[in-house]
Amino acid sequence: MRPAGLVLIVAVAAASGAHAQKFDGLAATPPMGWNSWNHVGCDVTEAVIRETADAMVATGMRDAGYVYVVIDDCWHGERGADGKIQPDPERFPSGMKALADYVHAKGLKLGIYSDAGWETCGGRPGSRGHEYQDALTYAAWGIDYLKYDWCATEGLNAEGAYQTMGRALAAAGRPVVFSLCEWGDNRPWEWGPAIGHLWRTTGDIAPCWDCEVDHGDWSSWGVLRILDMQDGLRIHAGPDHWNDPDMMEIGNGMSASEDRAHFSMWAMLAAPLIAGNDLRTMSESTRAILINDEVIAVDQDPLGIQGFKYRSDGDLEIWFKPLAGEDWAMCVLNRGEAPRQVVLDWQAELVADDLADREALFKARLYRVRDLWTGEILGTTRRKLSAEVPGHNVLMVRLIRLLDAQD
Amino acid sequence: MRPAGLVLIVAVAAASGAHAQKFDGLAATPPMGWNSWNHVGCDVTEAVIRETADAMVATGMRDAGYVYVVIDDCWHGERGADGKIQPDPERFPSGMKALADYVHAKGLKLGIYSDAGWETCGGRPGSRGHEYQDALTYAAWGIDYLKYDWCATEGLNAEGAYQTMGRALAAAGRPVVFSLCEWGDNRPWEWGPAIGHLWRTTGDIAPCWDCEVDHGDWSSWGVLRILDMQDGLRIHAGPDHWNDPDMMEIGNGMSASEDRAHFSMWAMLAAPLIAGNDLRTMSESTRAILINDEVIAVDQDPLGIQGFKYRSDGDLEIWFKPLAGEDWAMCVLNRGEAPRQVVLDWQAELVADDLADREALFKARLYRVRDLWTGEILGTTRRKLSAEVPGHNVLMVRLIRLLDAQD
Repeated sequence: MRPAGLVLIVAVAAASGAHAQKFDGLAATPPMGWNSWNHVGCDVTEAVIRETADAMVATGMRDAGYVYVVIDDCWHGERGADGKIQPDPERFPSGMKALADYVHAKGLKLGIYSDAGWETCGGRPGSRGHEYQDALTYAAWGIDYLKYDWCATEGLNAEGAYQTMGRALAAAGRPVVFSLCEWGDNRPWEWGPAIGHLWRTTGDIAPCWDCEVDHGDWSSWGVLRILDMQDGLRIHAGPDHWNDPDMMEIGNGMSASEDRAHFSMWAMLAAPLIAGNDLRTMSESTRAILINDEVIAVDQDPLGIQGFKYRSDGDLEIWFKPLAGEDWAMCVLNRGEAPRQVVLDWQAELVADDLADREALFKARLYRVRDLWTGEILGTTRRKLSAEVPGHNVLMVRLIRLLDAQD
Repeated sequence: MRPAGLVLIVAVAAASGAHAQKFDGLAATPPMGWNSWNHVGCDVTEAVIRETADAMVATGMRDAGYVYVVIDDCWHGERGADGKIQPDPERFPSGMKALADYVHAKGLKLGIYSDAGWETCGGRPGSRGHEYQDALTYAAWGIDYLKYDWCATEGLNAEGAYQTMGRALAAAGRPVVFSLCEWGDNRPWEWGPAIGHLWRTTGDIAPCWDCEVDHGDWSSWGVLRILDMQDGLRIHAGPDHWNDPDMMEIGNGMSASEDRAHFSMWAMLAAPLIAGNDLRTMSESTRAILINDEVIAVDQDPLGIQGFKYRSDGDLEIWFKPLAGEDWAMCVLNRGEAPRQVVLDWQAELVADDLADREALFKARLYRVRDLWTGEILGTTRRKLSAEVPGHNVLMVRLIRLLDAQD
């Protein structure tokens, strides 16, 4: 089977090139890193950022691929008389340049946060009308990544507002990954590829399996709700332009099996892998999930094709993701609490990228089946796969093509 | 008759106050001044501005009320490395601060031009993403008036884009008349009052009586075309928030009678009176039109109620405008080439502000009728007015209420 996704990639890259306003090639695979919001919220300080950078190295996160340390909302002080934004002098007494130097010296990159509107979601100064000046300031500080939020944006057109900051970043000249945090309200998957490297598809995630958290005039959602909101969006993603189902909540209170399922599904979605837990104090179990290199490899696969739901049966869903070298990832997700038995007769399945005609993939090709959470070989696609998937958990495998054994 | 316009004024002022983002009170009556575009176009230099300031004093224009000298497009050089806009060093070698000082020393005010988009209409740097920085720069230079154009604005929401610059001007702290040059495409009369002091209602004017000039992808229009495009907009205008039917073309090639009619009708519209001819070389006839203090008084009437078309008969239109002190202005416009006879039996007319119930105004009140172009008294409203109006000309009178003679 010729991966249909390749055709898609070429088409999107060409469309993107026509409007080129962004730094191409900074996110050939989904960005990986850490962001202060999910755990630290508005209490971010330079000590938190330094200690997190230290922890990213000490825990092996950096070596697993997590490179961006992103300061989210509430780092801001006031603007100077010339309009230049300054960090909060109490929270960041050493200044942003010194912090960037520190982070860079660790082999990491520094991200920062702003907002397209008058104010950030936390009520700090937004970038509206200050875009070029802020971009120059970020470049002078050595910023590598900008998460750009969508609060207090009355009167703005979303595409236009992100274009303005995108061009400002380009003019400032320092390569910056541009993360469009527009919440999916204005179909950012349609215009985001030309402007940024990733775009939020939904509102905020919450650290729960299947909940809606009411914040008054907005809600955040658990992992399953966010997952379901990705329906129909995969065609828009690819190298340098990713759907962003929000940052991860692994280590923030869900069970280990829920965390494992969350991580697996984010990898199936080719989602940006931005950890949101306290890396300084995380458990060995959390760490093991976050640095599982075989799951990360599914996420970071160079084809950059987002996975798809192949079929479902009640709480049981089977997802596939095409990988380079004609491999595939498969993930069986059990959304419910009760364990579920899954039986897959590979020879009878008509799995294919849903962008292509379906074909009897596993009749034409032989694959070894490797469990990505246990490391076990579950045989080949010559025999049926039969397994029990516990509640709120996954069975995630890589189908490794065996060239010699073909036919 | 209680002028219905008074009710209107109170209502609009209250609505405007709720969003206050602009410097209130800078344009209690329609702004008056001169702008470089209509005559000089892109060839504007500091010498032109200095000489025009000199001419505004020498010709009596300043003393007639023309106070703003506005530099339109093409004054710009490049932005500096810090993003700060600089004037073209060849055209403005002394810099804008020195020019503002010169203009201010003459008892005049200095205006400048920018654009909400990436580029001005003349291809110079626009203010998009630079709004706050540009507003600070203008304030440092001593700028008093900003005309803000609408070229290269793809992806912008008009109201939001003008809000951004409006707030930037407010933040910079120097009082600036904010002229929204949005061409009427996005109903600026609905949102303009909260943001600026005047808003263009149409595309550009051309120096002709009744023509459309085709510029390829846009057109400019003669005086009559622009006049007709004001239909239905008067309810939106009032003190500090004016409909702007574009700058004047008086002295730019039309006949003296056409210029006189143009000036009269702009006064009836309570339009900003921004001259666009070469003040250094204008004829005595042109000067006499521009400084006709009785016509200017109609425009600058403190009630600030835009006039209305009362009735028409082919090429003959009769306009009224309520004035302070229960006076009225009346203008009979002959759009055609042939002279037309007009007969007005005041006692039979039911003239009133079209916002109020019509009543037999001239039965209840006695007025003296004064011709504003000849200075002649044409009797009172006790007897019929009978006059010939030459082609492409007006009969403009002020109806001066005679309190003693009432009833």
